[in-house]
Amino acid sequence: MPPILSIVGKSNVGKTTLLEKLIAELKRRGYRLATVKHDVHGFDMDQPGKDSWRHAQAGADAVVVSSPQKLALLQKTDHDASLDELARLLGEGYDLILTEGYKQNSAPKIEVHRKAAGQGGLLCSPQELVAVATDEPLEALVPQFSLEDAAGLASLIEERFLSRPRQEWTTLYVNGAQIPLTPFVQEILRETTLGLVSTLRGVDKVKTLELSFRRKA
Amino acid sequence: MPPILSIVGKSNVGKTTLLEKLIAELKRRGYRLATVKHDVHGFDMDQPGKDSWRHAQAGADAVVVSSPQKLALLQKTDHDASLDELARLLGEGYDLILTEGYKQNSAPKIEVHRKAAGQGGLLCSPQELVAVATDEPLEALVPQFSLEDAAGLASLIEERFLSRPRQEWTTLYVNGAQIPLTPFVQEILRETTLGLVSTLRGVDKVKTLELSFRRKA
Repeated sequence: MPPILSIVGKSNVGKTTLLEKLIAELKRRGYRLATVKHDVHGFDMDQPGKDSWRHAQAGADAVVVSSPQKLALLQKTDHDASLDELARLLGEGYDLILTEGYKQNSAPKIEVHRKAAGQGGLLCSPQELVAVATDEPLEALVPQFSLEDAAGLASLIEERFLSRPRQEWTTLYVNGAQIPLTPFVQEILRETTLGLVSTLRGVDKVKTLELSFRRKA
Repeated sequence: MPPILSIVGKSNVGKTTLLEKLIAELKRRGYRLATVKHDVHGFDMDQPGKDSWRHAQAGADAVVVSSPQKLALLQKTDHDASLDELARLLGEGYDLILTEGYKQNSAPKIEVHRKAAGQGGLLCSPQELVAVATDEPLEALVPQFSLEDAAGLASLIEERFLSRPRQEWTTLYVNGAQIPLTPFVQEILRETTLGLVSTLRGVDKVKTLELSFRRKA
């Protein structure tokens, strides 16, 4: 799955604003980006009376609306999805997944800090942090950027998450749960599958591959 | 991928109403359902000013909003997604995908017909049709059901699409395009992957498996 980076911080420090700047800067550099926002209160995206709304009301577990410009998937769930689950939903087509919030998650983080909201210091430990975006110098042992320095942050993100070797990965889910893979096992799975698949008609240079099946257990 | 069945018909014959009844009846029988609706005119799901909207405006190619009850994925696209692409997005967690419309697609179909809208007969040829839902008897060589008979249609759908052997499948995408697989190749891919994966820690009985990777081509 693509690398995941979380933008965290206390309330009203400007997480969304920083994220907007980062998205614009990384897009300018040619990356495909997905973002994830956690909404504790629930949300309503669909409009009552629309066909897709009627499908969901009738009991559909997921509803897709597709148009030539965009598509939407609304899915019922019985739990708060983990970032791993959301990354699986997004698939292999993105270079980076940026999240707003998710400070409890183990993904690496950039913390947004403001002097005005800063009583008590940073939320995160230095071990969790890739960088801090701040309007005052801090005594933290991580790289610090001004709140305006999207270019500087983007360069750090490129170096840490978007350099070539890190853009290769192998992911396995069994019965919906991710199975941790050592680099050795990743290579065996990848090379074996490539060996089998490379002889098939229609397969040329393989950049991404997705194999899935369902069977009676 | 799960089987796909399209509900088609002329304008205003009651496609959404029939679909609502079918969804409710199939849910009652315990199936996990996804629906797909085509929207030629585009649509607006996100609300201006919301964080997710700001992410998209800043340039994110996809935005996910996740809550404990539901999740939403809004994705930019440069073309009208095929049903195969949409099925890939939905993943392996559904028993059946029902679409409203998509009459040009090759998926099997149920046509909804009304006497009042019926000038010119059916849209589809008998070869494409699994059944017709109609308010008048037709001379079509396919099973016919009244517009109220969701139970009858659901039983036919169960028999045709949800019987055990059809609930097993193997799907392969390379560089985002689906690769057709003969039953023989499906079995080789499945059995080889199962052989490799079954020795991994955390893997017990495999019902669904998803393996994906990305590499430099």
